[in-house]
Amino acid sequence: MSSEIYSYLYEKLFELGALDVYTQSIYMKKNRPAIKLSVICEKEHLDKVIESILKETTTFGIRYNTFKRKVLERKHTKIETKYGNVSIKCAYYKDKLLKYAPEYEECKRIAKEFNIPLKKVYEDINSTFQFLIEKEKVHETTKTVKKID
Amino acid sequence: MSSEIYSYLYEKLFELGALDVYTQSIYMKKNRPAIKLSVICEKEHLDKVIESILKETTTFGIRYNTFKRKVLERKHTKIETKYGNVSIKCAYYKDKLLKYAPEYEECKRIAKEFNIPLKKVYEDINSTFQFLIEKEKVHETTKTVKKID
Amino acid sequence: MSSEIYSYLYEKLFELGALDVYTQSIYMKKNRPAIKLSVICEKEHLDKVIESILKETTTFGIRYNTFKRKVLERKHTKIETKYGNVSIKCAYYKDKLLKYAPEYEECKRIAKEFNIPLKKVYEDINSTFQFLIEKEKVHETTKTVKKID
Amino acid sequence: MSSEIYSYLYEKLFELGALDVYTQSIYMKKNRPAIKLSVICEKEHLDKVIESILKETTTFGIRYNTFKRKVLERKHTKIETKYGNVSIKCAYYKDKLLKYAPEYEECKRIAKEFNIPLKKVYEDINSTFQFLIEKEKVHETTKTVKKID
Amino acid sequence: MSSEIYSYLYEKLFELGALDVYTQSIYMKKNRPAIKLSVICEKEHLDKVIESILKETTTFGIRYNTFKRKVLERKHTKIETKYGNVSIKCAYYKDKLLKYAPEYEECKRIAKEFNIPLKKVYEDINSTFQFLIEKEKVHETTKTVKKID
Amino acid sequence: MSSEIYSYLYEKLFELGALDVYTQSIYMKKNRPAIKLSVICEKEHLDKVIESILKETTTFGIRYNTFKRKVLERKHTKIETKYGNVSIKCAYYKDKLLKYAPEYEECKRIAKEFNIPLKKVYEDINSTFQFLIEKEKVHETTKTVKKID
Repeated sequence: MSSEIYSYLYEKLFELGALDVYTQSIYMKKNRPAIKLSVICEKEHLDKVIESILKETTTFGIRYNTFKRKVLERKHTKIETKYGNVSIKCAYYKDKLLKYAPEYEECKRIAKEFNIPLKKVYEDINSTFQFLIEKEKVHETTKTVKKID
Repeated sequence: MSSEIYSYLYEKLFELGALDVYTQSIYMKKNRPAIKLSVICEKEHLDKVIESILKETTTFGIRYNTFKRKVLERKHTKIETKYGNVSIKCAYYKDKLLKYAPEYEECKRIAKEFNIPLKKVYEDINSTFQFLIEKEKVHETTKTVKKID
Repeated sequence: MSSEIYSYLYEKLFELGALDVYTQSIYMKKNRPAIKLSVICEKEHLDKVIESILKETTTFGIRYNTFKRKVLERKHTKIETKYGNVSIKCAYYKDKLLKYAPEYEECKRIAKEFNIPLKKVYEDINSTFQFLIEKEKVHETTKTVKKID
Repeated sequence: MSSEIYSYLYEKLFELGALDVYTQSIYMKKNRPAIKLSVICEKEHLDKVIESILKETTTFGIRYNTFKRKVLERKHTKIETKYGNVSIKCAYYKDKLLKYAPEYEECKRIAKEFNIPLKKVYEDINSTFQFLIEKEKVHETTKTVKKID
Repeated sequence: MSSEIYSYLYEKLFELGALDVYTQSIYMKKNRPAIKLSVICEKEHLDKVIESILKETTTFGIRYNTFKRKVLERKHTKIETKYGNVSIKCAYYKDKLLKYAPEYEECKRIAKEFNIPLKKVYEDINSTFQFLIEKEKVHETTKTVKKID
Repeated sequence: MSSEIYSYLYEKLFELGALDVYTQSIYMKKNRPAIKLSVICEKEHLDKVIESILKETTTFGIRYNTFKRKVLERKHTKIETKYGNVSIKCAYYKDKLLKYAPEYEECKRIAKEFNIPLKKVYEDINSTFQFLIEKEKVHETTKTVKKID
């Protein structure tokens, strides 16, 4: 299968409700390198996802199974930084802030606008957010947050 | 484990009823690169497959699970090409021709006999088959096909 | 390094003159999975490319070398298909058409517009082009082509 | 995520009861290379393992499932070699010795002490053990072994 | 080759002067998955490195070449953090601080001692260092640094 | 490119004088997984190898370079085993036997004929050869060997 198809397929599968899509290189009989496509989706989107993979790829079959998931509660917040407001994805475990990540598309826009490395944008924003946490200016529990918003 | 064993193992597993066999490179503790062997088979062949893997490889254990499968209905047909008759594997979705693939071993034989690139053999045969589809000379539903054969 | 940086980095490196960019997974000491970034560029772009990688990534060093290249002569042509005009990238070896590929972005646009699988778009366009080759309606040598255009 | 974290994480997960831990390189949307971490553990250790992965890594979620396992019965024995006593891990299938492996840490120590390649240490020990098997000086069934020890 | 050998081999090669060692999974003829070992070293260590690989592995041959390298100037500094003093590896480009990384072994020790995720240790130390940079308490050029130390 | 082409291509390249052929999975722009094909050959076979890759694959270009090689001197010998005569590939370093490997095709034939695991065939033959080395019945230097043959 032309590898050009993947970018399009990823896009399509996310539109159909996929929660995650990834590929892995595998090796089959007769020295055939191949790509294993994995899609995670809710049951309600399964039929559409299967139909799309069958139609868009060269595969002759699909295997699937039910998995349990443990997912952190997520919340988006906005903070002020020297580059302007930036969205941060926050994740909570047992109601406490456990990890966070600035939004990629916004950081990318900043890197281009300010003409600085994307890596530096991440470092600066993470550092600002870390400072807010220490000053207790970020609500570290999902509960408090819910009250305010 | 000597990597020479895989070619032999693939062959053996298919003989024992495996529907698919593939390997993936994984990384274990203590900087150990390793190979994860995956085999798909019907329940009735499971014991033989497990026994074979335990005996032929250095593994100390095997994990397995039941998966559901969605497989396209398949049918082999023969078409006339400028290289002679060639078998085509056809796959149907909801009773309609969805994809097809010329048989590898036949294409390989043609490439050698005519001394042309295997890639060109595929291109020519695909093009011929595509032409037959457009001229409606290929039965595009499994039903029609079943009536005729 | 956050893996989010790659999409941005690829884009940046192509802007700086990279001819090709790709990644490979490697395994380093202390069980560290890592990503090896490879960039192919002309000598004149080397300094900019090195500077960009040093600034955008977490690497502490870069290795580079001079390679010889054998590249097929390329030419873009346009053909008429049932989906409208489509660009085809043609490649010539010793002055003869050796391979071709429809432009991805155009095929993607067609797949969306006509609501058909991208795979089918490729198949149909390839088949149309293959037909034109057989009818000698495509100039199969770079020389003829140069005269006409 | 910094790849430096894996060595520490492997160690931690084994302490929490993991039976096996491995990583695979995968490719996600937007050209993001990523690492898929797989952990095999008994149900009783699941919660601790999940908590540790959520806290130590950048992941926002974990998938898990129940697998069946077929594991060879294992037993450690000690044999005399020209390098001194060495532990051998023996594995039995249907009560018969099927495979064995000298203990890595001991072989490593020998390689350093005797200043010889680790590969040669393995070869010599395997050869000595193979000789003992042929002379029936190794109990080839788990039953006999259990009586003696 | 037993994959157990790699951890030992990595250690050995670094002792012999290797600057970097990594592995990649490759696929050879006859469906043989294999591991490609890459070692970077100065010319003066080449013979020892080659001899060691030939003796410790199953390979029948080694390929090598000369590469040019662009390496950032590095300097270790120590900063005070809430976990005590921590070493930071700093890297300079055109005499300006470009990137830094806390020492893994120290962070690991802290994570264990304070019983907190290693990821959090990195975050806190990075944040502290980032703060020092902003307050200009870290000498951002190699020149200044050299004067003081 | 159809992954079916690789088995054929490997065969073809070895016929054209390739000393080694292997593939690696790489990731290109726009989420395209791809296969990097590496071929090692003597200079005299370079043109044929390049022409074959250009004709058989979808690539638009090839990079190549000159590498130095350090290859162990090799010699085939035959030993008597309980399965009959078996060929062993021996490799010498500084005129001393350093490693050996039984011929795969012969071991495979034995495994089938005697209906035993291929792994066991290797173990038994290696053990027999190891025994011969210890009894000094194998000429451990290339020089002696050359005198006798």
